[in-house]
Amino acid sequence: MAVVGLGPGGEHTLTIEAKNALQKAEIIIGYKTYIKLVKNFEFDTSDKKFLEFGMKKEIERAKKALNTASEGKKVAVVSSGDPGVYGMAGPILELSKHYNIDVEVIPGLTASNASASVLGAPLMHDYVTISLSDLLTPFDVIKNRVKKAAEGDFVITLYNPKSNQRQVQFQTIIELLLELKSHDTPVGIVKNCKRPNERAILTTLSQIPYDEVDMLSTVIIGNSQSYIELDKFITPRGYKI
Amino acid sequence: MAVVGLGPGGEHTLTIEAKNALQKAEIIIGYKTYIKLVKNFEFDTSDKKFLEFGMKKEIERAKKALNTASEGKKVAVVSSGDPGVYGMAGPILELSKHYNIDVEVIPGLTASNASASVLGAPLMHDYVTISLSDLLTPFDVIKNRVKKAAEGDFVITLYNPKSNQRQVQFQTIIELLLELKSHDTPVGIVKNCKRPNERAILTTLSQIPYDEVDMLSTVIIGNSQSYIELDKFITPRGYKI
Repeated sequence: MAVVGLGPGGEHTLTIEAKNALQKAEIIIGYKTYIKLVKNFEFDTSDKKFLEFGMKKEIERAKKALNTASEGKKVAVVSSGDPGVYGMAGPILELSKHYNIDVEVIPGLTASNASASVLGAPLMHDYVTISLSDLLTPFDVIKNRVKKAAEGDFVITLYNPKSNQRQVQFQTIIELLLELKSHDTPVGIVKNCKRPNERAILTTLSQIPYDEVDMLSTVIIGNSQSYIELDKFITPRGYKI
Repeated sequence: MAVVGLGPGGEHTLTIEAKNALQKAEIIIGYKTYIKLVKNFEFDTSDKKFLEFGMKKEIERAKKALNTASEGKKVAVVSSGDPGVYGMAGPILELSKHYNIDVEVIPGLTASNASASVLGAPLMHDYVTISLSDLLTPFDVIKNRVKKAAEGDFVITLYNPKSNQRQVQFQTIIELLLELKSHDTPVGIVKNCKRPNERAILTTLSQIPYDEVDMLSTVIIGNSQSYIELDKFITPRGYKI
């Protein structure tokens, strides 16, 4: 079976190998929003069966996929972005030892790289990727990582800055960063990256419009060398220009 | 003009939008190894002109591309992996303010995500990306970032671990990590990721086969929860499995 990364957006952000894997599949399993996306892709899906799941049903979804593959079906599990980054590759591989199933992970564009391309070139130097979801990770661990990332002068990408239930952590993290980094540090926010209604906001650490950040936003915070010029967020690599 | 990410490998790792951008271009500019790759893609390139450059000519390449685009030509600059990660997006955007040219960055799969997919799911939790190239970055900055990444218990991806001229830094960094992390920490090395002769090595921090690591290798070092089982390198997200 294959765990297939859809990338951040529509069909155009799929890799060719991801598209091929979907075309070969008999059964496509995923979170309902992504199943809807795949059903609207241009290639013919009339011969395929779709199984859609609600949010937070990752383990149930992974077991269903492995059980279905055990019955001899060609299964593709879809995951937005890269399935290997806070996605479905982990739980499926963790469970796969109980099955005699070969699992192939097909990587996809993850939100940090896709959002960076919309903003300019903010990830041109060393960067960290941190999820603010504290469902599975203690918030103290998250805060310590943010602190170490600031001390190392990394560019920082924040995934899952908010959810419907989780509203305050993002502001807490930005307040922590304001103690550790220049208030003028460039910040880029990308909403609905590579999807309809995509929107990019360029701002600074002390001026973040908190209400604009939602569960479909990715936030990139520069390092000490980053700058915004002519609506582009750039972290220089160090070339003599 | 477009700066187009080729991803790590052959045509199958291109995104569909990247392929479309190459097909639309009249002139394709890049490092000679990647120009050779593009010339071998399946789509018809007989109507296109190719301009190839040697290594370390990034600024020359960027200026040539911007000058050519200024003449009204449809230009695509190709960059391996993601052009926004240690790639061509940065220098081109930095220089573009001197030209009246609209630059679109088309993201590609970067080595960390692609290599992770070959190894299993090592990037399922917060991770850092660090280049060991000290051509443009003081080695003390690199060492400090590695130290902070270890203190934050991030998964660590090392880009450019070695080059022909640069052989010792990689071992110095691993020795630093051995002071800060468990010697049993899982490590994955991917050589020629998604290309012919791809090879994956699974090992631990204290057992790294230094001679196997070369300039076409990506090295992923786990966090305190990472493990290797049945030839898969997994960093658990924290789900109850």
